[in-house]
Amino acid sequence: MTDYSNVDAFLVSNLDASLRELGRLVAQPSISAQKIGLNECAALVAEMLRARGFTANIYPTAGSSVVVAERKGKNDKTLLFYNHYDVQPPEPLELWDSPPFEPQIRDGKMYGRGVSDDKGHFAARLFALDALLAEGELPCNVKFIVEGEEETASVNLAKFIHENTDLLKADACIWEFGGVDHTDTPMQYLGLRGIQYVELSVDLLSTDVHSGLGGSIFPNAAWRLVWALNTLKGADERILIPGFYDDVKPPSARDRELMSALADVTEEYKSRYGVPYFIKGLKGGDELKIEEVFSPTCTICGLTSGYQGPGSKTVLPARASAKVDFRLIPDQDPSDILKKLRAHLDSQGFTDVKITDLGGDAPARTDPDHPFIQLVIAAAEEVYEKPMSLVPLVGGSGPNHPFVHVLGLPVATAGMGYPDTKTHAPNENIRLDLYLKHARHMARVVREFGEGK
Amino acid sequence: MTDYSNVDAFLVSNLDASLRELGRLVAQPSISAQKIGLNECAALVAEMLRARGFTANIYPTAGSSVVVAERKGKNDKTLLFYNHYDVQPPEPLELWDSPPFEPQIRDGKMYGRGVSDDKGHFAARLFALDALLAEGELPCNVKFIVEGEEETASVNLAKFIHENTDLLKADACIWEFGGVDHTDTPMQYLGLRGIQYVELSVDLLSTDVHSGLGGSIFPNAAWRLVWALNTLKGADERILIPGFYDDVKPPSARDRELMSALADVTEEYKSRYGVPYFIKGLKGGDELKIEEVFSPTCTICGLTSGYQGPGSKTVLPARASAKVDFRLIPDQDPSDILKKLRAHLDSQGFTDVKITDLGGDAPARTDPDHPFIQLVIAAAEEVYEKPMSLVPLVGGSGPNHPFVHVLGLPVATAGMGYPDTKTHAPNENIRLDLYLKHARHMARVVREFGEGK
Repeated sequence: MTDYSNVDAFLVSNLDASLRELGRLVAQPSISAQKIGLNECAALVAEMLRARGFTANIYPTAGSSVVVAERKGKNDKTLLFYNHYDVQPPEPLELWDSPPFEPQIRDGKMYGRGVSDDKGHFAARLFALDALLAEGELPCNVKFIVEGEEETASVNLAKFIHENTDLLKADACIWEFGGVDHTDTPMQYLGLRGIQYVELSVDLLSTDVHSGLGGSIFPNAAWRLVWALNTLKGADERILIPGFYDDVKPPSARDRELMSALADVTEEYKSRYGVPYFIKGLKGGDELKIEEVFSPTCTICGLTSGYQGPGSKTVLPARASAKVDFRLIPDQDPSDILKKLRAHLDSQGFTDVKITDLGGDAPARTDPDHPFIQLVIAAAEEVYEKPMSLVPLVGGSGPNHPFVHVLGLPVATAGMGYPDTKTHAPNENIRLDLYLKHARHMARVVREFGEGK
Repeated sequence: MTDYSNVDAFLVSNLDASLRELGRLVAQPSISAQKIGLNECAALVAEMLRARGFTANIYPTAGSSVVVAERKGKNDKTLLFYNHYDVQPPEPLELWDSPPFEPQIRDGKMYGRGVSDDKGHFAARLFALDALLAEGELPCNVKFIVEGEEETASVNLAKFIHENTDLLKADACIWEFGGVDHTDTPMQYLGLRGIQYVELSVDLLSTDVHSGLGGSIFPNAAWRLVWALNTLKGADERILIPGFYDDVKPPSARDRELMSALADVTEEYKSRYGVPYFIKGLKGGDELKIEEVFSPTCTICGLTSGYQGPGSKTVLPARASAKVDFRLIPDQDPSDILKKLRAHLDSQGFTDVKITDLGGDAPARTDPDHPFIQLVIAAAEEVYEKPMSLVPLVGGSGPNHPFVHVLGLPVATAGMGYPDTKTHAPNENIRLDLYLKHARHMARVVREFGEGK
């Protein structure tokens, strides 16, 4: 068994310096949905990589730039890290205890927008490489691909990967996120649901109108939107778009076995999120865990129309819109869902409802028995002192489809997430102990992979 | 026939001074929905009245204060003016060509929030009294009641009137608004629809959640709201609350006759508001005019939930709400409608939808053959040089019910509104020629009323 005492000693001694570097990265806003600070953040990411001797280049796309970097190692094997430098919008700002872009350490945690998703992961991986470089050359080639549109459905990444398969050629991939569950058990997520995100909008009048005037005779954009949405999903949660479920593969016996081995989340969800009840008559247990990830969704993420301030304003709104995401299960296809959505709205008489495609990812999964997955699992056990839980599919989405199906890579997850990490919400944070563990885990994975274990 | 040449000469000579006074009033924000500037505006209103020799008092209520003022005249007859000093919120600010609270005159119009609704009316009426006072005593007692919550459904006015019937004792009332149609014909509005304004809200989780996590298993406040709204009104525009239509009186033969005499609005509405089609299969003509006012409504005035910014945010919202107004027809009762709404939502399984009562007014109408109405009509013809159109009921709402049914007054409308006056919308404005005409009309009404004609 390889001795990691020097590596671990380096990481413990240099933790504060690494957190300071992470703090600088978090302090740089990089909100892809609002196109804020993206070029500045890409430049900072490239600078951080070059400081470790990587050749790093910034590639423009139709949206945010992609940073790709490489440093050669002792042999021809290549490990590819996938990360993203963009973050979710920080709103609602009033619910943050400290400003989202002024990272703050308190009570063993660092708070800030993007500190967990995904800047902490990027910084901790560089920190792991620092520990290996302190001992000499890297054990294998290491590449990074750090994109800037993950939070807006990675709209340009698949095309970039398709066009740059040589640049990104590798043997295995570590995914941007990972973490522990509420018992601090490290998780190995083996697949991601797909997603299709749309804005549905209705524009009917040239101006908002006094509701006393138009209410009885003018069409109302907000009503049209409500009626259109109502045709998408019934109160029984069944999605009503014809053909929506056609390509859904139900979970296999192996999937059910793996899901069953995972910790129960029923009470955890109730207390953490104040969930008053689960939908579809779910009571909890295995049934809840399986439904959580193996069923596709149609979620209203936002509604906007007319007057939204305090008190009353008697106005008939000219415009209304909804943000809606569909989470997709293998083998559903985002572009197919988009077509079916349009056809459904048209057939229901809602030709006046415009669909704006805000991006999609196809679902994809990696085989739990792949040797690289087994290597990542074994390395984790040493650091976390308990076996990793294997999760066949998770509820979130990401662009793993082109990594799995275009680059042909096994994709393993590992990271510092934990149940109260509040990604996409106010007070996003990381636990510093998990930051250190992730760096220790990554140092082991790179070395074991390079040494051919 | 009384000679009004001195009065008219006074008004023409002093118009600019009166507009400057109006400008000061408009520059004082007084947004009842947002509780901005109300006390300051009430004080300014009282000061303007006292400057004309009125005794003016500011009465507190549970909400905004009410200003009541009186000046004795030559006899015991009393004319009561009803006005309001509050205005609608100015949002969306970016659509104003000049700042809403920096009134600006251009192209024969004055622009600013509240310039038409209702500060211009108040200022023009004082201006009319100035012209009469320039000739000696007022021809009759004049009272003003100027409230500060008309734009939030006058939630405290009915109670104030009930408790102050002696203070407000009068023989006739001039309503806060009025105006001309798109052919510059002055309008006599003889009734107002009622209103019940509510906020419907759903609060389900303790925090917004990543949609990848909760989408398949947590209840979604936005979906609950959409489904609840959908039970209120069908896509055929039929309101589905049981008993909603029980107390609706259909228009009488006389109502239909009066409506039929009014100018057609079909093409006007299409071009002014960009209306792509009328609902309920309406094509235009008398059918459209009658449906516009003689049918009750259920209008979504606003929708709010989750992420509403640019691009996408994958969030499952903890909270969703809608602003909804119901316009009511004699003899529908707002509190009865509120009860039926609650019962309906409960019976449909939406006990999780909270109803916040944001105010209501009962509908009320005045007899077109009342002598005071005939006096106002005759005085208008001299100023506007064409007969007034009689409108049995208008689409808007207001607190005329307690004036008609508690104080027992005939209520006549007169004013400076016109089709492009943009009340409740950006670029609210008045035409200066109509400001002058309204002052001339009011001077005549006060004198003719005082002289017992």
